[in-house]
Amino acid sequence: MKRDSLASAASGLDRLLRKLGRVSDEEACLTRTFLSPAMGRANRLVGAWMQEAGLDVREDAFGNLIGRIEAHKPGARTLILGSHLDTVRDAGRFDGALGVLLPIIVLRRLRREGVRLPFAVEVVGFSEEEGVRFSSAYLGSKGYAGAMRAADLGLRDENGISVRECLQEWSGRRDAWKTPGRAHSRRELLGYLEVHIEQGPVLEEHGLACGVVSAIAGQTRARVEFAGRAGHAGTTPMALRRDALAGAAEFIVVSEMLAKMRPPLVATVGRLEVRPGAANVIAGGAELSLDIRHPADGDRREALRMLRSAADRVAHKRGLKVSFQVVQDNPSVACSPGLTGLLAESVRSRQGKLLLLPSGAGHDGVVLSSLVPVAMLFVRCRGGVSHNPEEHVGKGDLAASIEVVGDFLIRLARRNTE
Amino acid sequence: MKRDSLASAASGLDRLLRKLGRVSDEEACLTRTFLSPAMGRANRLVGAWMQEAGLDVREDAFGNLIGRIEAHKPGARTLILGSHLDTVRDAGRFDGALGVLLPIIVLRRLRREGVRLPFAVEVVGFSEEEGVRFSSAYLGSKGYAGAMRAADLGLRDENGISVRECLQEWSGRRDAWKTPGRAHSRRELLGYLEVHIEQGPVLEEHGLACGVVSAIAGQTRARVEFAGRAGHAGTTPMALRRDALAGAAEFIVVSEMLAKMRPPLVATVGRLEVRPGAANVIAGGAELSLDIRHPADGDRREALRMLRSAADRVAHKRGLKVSFQVVQDNPSVACSPGLTGLLAESVRSRQGKLLLLPSGAGHDGVVLSSLVPVAMLFVRCRGGVSHNPEEHVGKGDLAASIEVVGDFLIRLARRNTE
Repeated sequence: MKRDSLASAASGLDRLLRKLGRVSDEEACLTRTFLSPAMGRANRLVGAWMQEAGLDVREDAFGNLIGRIEAHKPGARTLILGSHLDTVRDAGRFDGALGVLLPIIVLRRLRREGVRLPFAVEVVGFSEEEGVRFSSAYLGSKGYAGAMRAADLGLRDENGISVRECLQEWSGRRDAWKTPGRAHSRRELLGYLEVHIEQGPVLEEHGLACGVVSAIAGQTRARVEFAGRAGHAGTTPMALRRDALAGAAEFIVVSEMLAKMRPPLVATVGRLEVRPGAANVIAGGAELSLDIRHPADGDRREALRMLRSAADRVAHKRGLKVSFQVVQDNPSVACSPGLTGLLAESVRSRQGKLLLLPSGAGHDGVVLSSLVPVAMLFVRCRGGVSHNPEEHVGKGDLAASIEVVGDFLIRLARRNTE
Repeated sequence: MKRDSLASAASGLDRLLRKLGRVSDEEACLTRTFLSPAMGRANRLVGAWMQEAGLDVREDAFGNLIGRIEAHKPGARTLILGSHLDTVRDAGRFDGALGVLLPIIVLRRLRREGVRLPFAVEVVGFSEEEGVRFSSAYLGSKGYAGAMRAADLGLRDENGISVRECLQEWSGRRDAWKTPGRAHSRRELLGYLEVHIEQGPVLEEHGLACGVVSAIAGQTRARVEFAGRAGHAGTTPMALRRDALAGAAEFIVVSEMLAKMRPPLVATVGRLEVRPGAANVIAGGAELSLDIRHPADGDRREALRMLRSAADRVAHKRGLKVSFQVVQDNPSVACSPGLTGLLAESVRSRQGKLLLLPSGAGHDGVVLSSLVPVAMLFVRCRGGVSHNPEEHVGKGDLAASIEVVGDFLIRLARRNTE
């Protein structure tokens, strides 16, 4: 592939990202949620781009947009390339969209160059990953993978509309969502590759355009509440205080220290509420959120145990009460060694250096991994910023990613014809 | 004084406190603010009790209620006994009221026992101490002491009414507030004694009904803001974070440690706000309130310097920006050694043990100290609780305080006739 055509492919991809980034449910910013009017327009727009690239396009009963190119021989397995087309509120234009539009550009280039793949390719734009509308993530990929449960279908949005009702209205007929168990059986599938912005600063820190994901970290969320005794800030000597905020602060410091000592563990307290929250009143209560992630579930669970006991010790020492409640617990997802190894070769041949990194964020691959071997390519984003209109990927990095994915497909084709 | 009559005096005081505690601007709770309708009713009620006890009653142009008993010889100096009649929102019935009603009960007892004092006594119910209506404290005692400034008169409440307008309306004629420079000149005054609930747990901790205040602590209030970089809680490794909340937490722990090492220093962070404040987002900003108090101004200022430099160190180490803004700075007020020594004798003769303790909270004595030697008696309150309907002083402690103040007046009388 020539450099100049690569640059023009990157510009083309950038143009598509900009156009799709204007398809929004809100005028002032980019917001596109599960089965919203904007999602309908996005599917039509991206579907047209898929057709131009030679893909056969359909939409499944879950609002997932699927573009397919058959293999040159019948009975071949299918490689899925994709990501999600929904966004958070006031989003950037790369998160999700990049992983749907980049494969379209790559496949168009391969077709122009006359490359024929020995496997079928399906480019999927999942209809839901961010969990905005129903406060529950992965509805699109769950539908595609046959993993949607009655509990998911019963979820209701803030207007009281259930996922089931929403899907019925979308497809225009009752129980449309029941039709496909899942798009594919396990043995029909070769793998799933997702291209996604890193949403973190590691690639930027290393000066690299791309990195290969080793695993999607498991995650525990907990709500930790310290209860002490409110009191007058002037008249209560330090030794007689039961200051809930001081206890929470000590716990935050301990959590951070523990995570720093055990990379790639991350522990975050992002929310902290103080009661009564007045300058001249010692805090009687402090409630915080704790988010722990690690690619290895055993390490994450050990960190959880240690932090739970740290909270108890802090509380005991200070005469506080503590409540430590786990509100979410997701195991980690390992990426496929085979696909990941191949992707690593492509990355190394493009940029010399290979960086394997865990994904701290969840992705559609979490759901797909129950059905198919998964690999993920991370693309550098400026400042590690995501979920924000400032989200940005440079054209050079788009070009590098296009080249890596093209190279990956060719390597996979070679391996699958050998 | 006999014990049974003392118990009935304490019951009488408790009854007055309960009656006054029902005089409120709100139906559901006790709230009585500067020159409100309820304050008018409170002044009439307490004025009637003063008259029954043999005091001549007037109200000054600042809404202060003043009951006076002349000395048995002309030209004698005046001892002021008092506290404030305004309250915080949803207040208890002891804070302020105790220091106005207890002297009435004591003077009534002395009159019944035929005790004649060689000095005049003025019982003052100051109209404003809590700073609720105009977000500025001590308006009543400032008026009484001739310390009210144009800036105070120009303050406006949440309805846009100024202190000046409020005073004009209260007194029913223009510029009434200009009439008295101050109630007394310096040489007319013998001293000021204020009885107040401790608002802290120290007396309860020591099992004592009363304690003598050594000084009213100076106070510094600061607003400290740490600014870091918001980021994804899953994708940003610990080493690359600039977590504003973690920085704030470290600063809170350091502040607490410093204060614990230097009693009677107290340092309190009571308010902490986190931006954006989401469980899965590293905090980009954290703003907190810092309240530092110490009876010795030098020690307080040194603590302030150390905490300022601690904030800088925490920020520097973590790649955060910090802003440290002092928003209030009040020097400490030493109590009069003469009056305090006499009060200490009274306390020791009543309860055997003497505890001298600084007042961490501000009181009317802060303003009066510019005019007259000041002494303060603290009374134990249950659990150290104040500014709350749960505020409570037991009848035994009311009795002890009545006895101590009566004894103090007799000792002062002896000293002043010698």
